[in-house]
Amino acid sequence: MLKLRKLEEQTIHSRTLFEGRVIRVELDEVRLPNGETSTRELVRHPGAVSVLAVTEEGKIVLVRQYRKPLEREILELPAGKLEPGEEPADCARRELEEETGYRATELTHLVSFYTSPGFADELLHLYEAQGVSEGTFQPDEDEFVERVELTLEEAFERVKSGEICDAKTVTALYILQGREQRAR
Amino acid sequence: MLKLRKLEEQTIHSRTLFEGRVIRVELDEVRLPNGETSTRELVRHPGAVSVLAVTEEGKIVLVRQYRKPLEREILELPAGKLEPGEEPADCARRELEEETGYRATELTHLVSFYTSPGFADELLHLYEAQGVSEGTFQPDEDEFVERVELTLEEAFERVKSGEICDAKTVTALYILQGREQRAR
Repeated sequence: MLKLRKLEEQTIHSRTLFEGRVIRVELDEVRLPNGETSTRELVRHPGAVSVLAVTEEGKIVLVRQYRKPLEREILELPAGKLEPGEEPADCARRELEEETGYRATELTHLVSFYTSPGFADELLHLYEAQGVSEGTFQPDEDEFVERVELTLEEAFERVKSGEICDAKTVTALYILQGREQRAR
Repeated sequence: MLKLRKLEEQTIHSRTLFEGRVIRVELDEVRLPNGETSTRELVRHPGAVSVLAVTEEGKIVLVRQYRKPLEREILELPAGKLEPGEEPADCARRELEEETGYRATELTHLVSFYTSPGFADELLHLYEAQGVSEGTFQPDEDEFVERVELTLEEAFERVKSGEICDAKTVTALYILQGREQRAR
């Protein structure tokens, strides 16, 4: 550590600019450690979960969906936003089944991370499904997702091609790759 | 693939709610694949870069900084927002030197990912620094960061304790861990 000084930014004033169904946008005026003031643009998010599920055949369960911010379809792990008060593991189980029809006997926590701490407080909890089995898949008419199953090697090809391109899915693939290397 | 149907959401109307220094917030009205309409809350971001730099002593170069959205300090890889038209690799080199004093002879691309494609279009480019050497570190008075150097094992302890807790840093650590396992 080269410097020892207080890094905290104190809130002078906080103003909510937008309160949506998913995010709340705030503009904060802050006092910096050197006494000067600045502004911070903040996105408040309820948090999310995602599930790494590998089938008995060794395939990773993914979903293809259209992401409006990117204006295109991408391949991702099943995921969803946390409902108020919901246990992340319960949410993960629900999203896995709703989006893919797969069930899990148990969910184990892999890692949690803030997706973009510079402007957002979204915390993503990544789980792994144990005892994965296929239920009767009756996709909700309001869920516009397609299920896709890939081997780890195929998944990394999709990372190269850019079809798999989001933080949670990329992280999960590297975790799985590391584990398979340990097992060799 | 279980279902084959068009997943695209067509924009009916787009309204900018907030134009900040870092993000732009939009509210889009969209037509869903089933013909119904909905709204999408979108955060536009210029994109960012981050650098994994390992010193000659085998330590990972990190920075401690206060993140207003989280209201606390965390440990992260050096990172920064892209300036308009800036090459990601140039930005990565600049941020590494500005935040830590370390220089790199070369930067190689590891992976790029969208941090949170559900509501934001931020694309994060992760680089690895080659030929890392220490320059003369004269921290900018406006950069409130502290340099911290950790072994991979120490870094994973900080993941456990929650001090390292963001997508780009966690991903980089798993990439590094996988590589070390391959090398054994």
